[in-house]
Amino acid sequence: MDHVVVMAGGSGTRFWPESRARRSKQFLDLTGRGPMIRETVRRLFPLLRRENVWVVAGEKDAPHLSARSLGIPGRNILLEPEGKNTAPAVALAVARIARRDPDAVIAAAPADHAVAREHAFRSVLRKGFRVAGRSGRFVTLGITPAHPATGYGYIERGGPFGGKADGVFNALRFTEKPDLADARRFVRSGRYSWNSGIFIFRADTFRDRLSRFLPEVHSAIEGAFRTYGKKEFTGRLREAYRRMPSISIDYGILEKEKGILVIPADFGWSDLGTWRSLHEFLGGAGENVTFGDAILLDCRNALVRTDRGVVAVAGMEDVVVVRSGDAVLVCPRGRSEDVKRIAEEVRKRFPHLS
Amino acid sequence: MDHVVVMAGGSGTRFWPESRARRSKQFLDLTGRGPMIRETVRRLFPLLRRENVWVVAGEKDAPHLSARSLGIPGRNILLEPEGKNTAPAVALAVARIARRDPDAVIAAAPADHAVAREHAFRSVLRKGFRVAGRSGRFVTLGITPAHPATGYGYIERGGPFGGKADGVFNALRFTEKPDLADARRFVRSGRYSWNSGIFIFRADTFRDRLSRFLPEVHSAIEGAFRTYGKKEFTGRLREAYRRMPSISIDYGILEKEKGILVIPADFGWSDLGTWRSLHEFLGGAGENVTFGDAILLDCRNALVRTDRGVVAVAGMEDVVVVRSGDAVLVCPRGRSEDVKRIAEEVRKRFPHLS
Repeated sequence: MDHVVVMAGGSGTRFWPESRARRSKQFLDLTGRGPMIRETVRRLFPLLRRENVWVVAGEKDAPHLSARSLGIPGRNILLEPEGKNTAPAVALAVARIARRDPDAVIAAAPADHAVAREHAFRSVLRKGFRVAGRSGRFVTLGITPAHPATGYGYIERGGPFGGKADGVFNALRFTEKPDLADARRFVRSGRYSWNSGIFIFRADTFRDRLSRFLPEVHSAIEGAFRTYGKKEFTGRLREAYRRMPSISIDYGILEKEKGILVIPADFGWSDLGTWRSLHEFLGGAGENVTFGDAILLDCRNALVRTDRGVVAVAGMEDVVVVRSGDAVLVCPRGRSEDVKRIAEEVRKRFPHLS
Repeated sequence: MDHVVVMAGGSGTRFWPESRARRSKQFLDLTGRGPMIRETVRRLFPLLRRENVWVVAGEKDAPHLSARSLGIPGRNILLEPEGKNTAPAVALAVARIARRDPDAVIAAAPADHAVAREHAFRSVLRKGFRVAGRSGRFVTLGITPAHPATGYGYIERGGPFGGKADGVFNALRFTEKPDLADARRFVRSGRYSWNSGIFIFRADTFRDRLSRFLPEVHSAIEGAFRTYGKKEFTGRLREAYRRMPSISIDYGILEKEKGILVIPADFGWSDLGTWRSLHEFLGGAGENVTFGDAILLDCRNALVRTDRGVVAVAGMEDVVVVRSGDAVLVCPRGRSEDVKRIAEEVRKRFPHLS
């Protein structure tokens, strides 16, 4: 059976002032359609049974997680005692799923990305399940790059997998956040995709690679699961997490794995990494995008959000103005990457507002 | 005796979102030193007895006016039943003052201007009282122009009054808000001052000119004052105001008067007409000026104010960011004049926030 693990353990400050220490990006409604995690889960339902959609998140985020509002069974929400990056999170989910469904084919997907064309997304995902299930390989979904972004990872593809012209390729190389010159070269070549962060694998493949590449994670998780269903499980899992390294799936497994496949696709994907990319996802070039009661006079390419009151902006171009609760942010769109720095400054100087 | 009438009847929207329909500029603390009207009154005290400082304001502003916090007797606050611009306001005050002190010399001054050098201001005002008292002329205080402002009135001066070299001149001509070319010519010539809006006169002079130039205002006020001290006075005054035209001192009296004198001076005056002029009054060229909890990263020449929470601004130049209560304003400094238009737009679309 096909399963999806939605990885919701992240915490971020690049959407300050909306994201705060206690409210991470995946729980924000950035697009106006609902909290990102709920959108991520919802767009899977036409493809999967609700019992086959899983969420892994940190214990600290439990108050934001409602199985009912997500539409999945409560037992499908897996809480990590502490955040140790994506490899332990996925390992935990795979161990849990495999107990119920040893033949599971599993897609791991970030909780906080956006998809504009959901039909296209689901049909690529369906193909990924099929390829991963039959081949026993790791399959990644690659995104046709729209511009030479330097904030994404790139996947270079080689020849078609198995010599067939069905859109599945051997992945040659992963490159994290290249410089602009490399990014331009990648895009021009036509042989690169953005790394969507969505990868698909059989449970048995994953456990085999985990035991070889990250044996300390493998044994910690397996050890804890020997008590699964007993009352000491929670304590054992906490103990296991304390011992495990903090490591991502990309560095811990994918970099070491040979024979990864990539399915290039174009389903209107965005990682919504910054206010700027939210603006790009929602608005056409030069368009203003507003949420809440906003008045814009002679503005162009502005993103203006407010959760209460009114925000009036006049005569500004390429600007981000966000009011959330007690805090207001104003910066040029092009400096959206600096929002992290601003959030740190706020945390230092006004800790109650960070 | 010398008296000052502080004219506090104005209402303005150029400081939206801080100024609102129910809270005019003179009651705002724009400079961080206190409400403008309180500052205007306070800076007179070293010169005048508190009983000789008067405030004329609209009835609607009574809730904002506390004689105790202004430091003047309650009976020195004169409330107009409705706003009819400055000529009726001053006429009302002069009628009231003359009943107690028929030989009064009176300065009328706006409640919402700022003065950086108070000692210099008081010494010019003292001179103005002396000259107006002895000569029976209208005396205006002129401000040495710092730049060719197009938002101010200009006074052209002629020869020295009475042939004496004591800094008092005949005023030749008043020009309201010139275009930039004229403003430049005025400043270059060295013969022009900005009109500070402060003018000084003897009570008898004023009443004489009022009866000649604005007889309907004169007779309405005089008529009401025939019942002064009786219980029908309030009703009579309301009746008088209903009949009076709405007219400024400048158009109603000064434009018609011959022989006005001007004392050019330089006491760090600003009418604080816009967010931009507030910024210029408070900050040096290129400096950021902040009020409240603000974080500025890589900003230049920015004015950032907040009355609560935190405002973070990054990578912006020449920008005004103001949060007040429910509302946020963002605009370039150079568009401060448009704030009025923004406030109108807010009033139209979100009447509860205007």
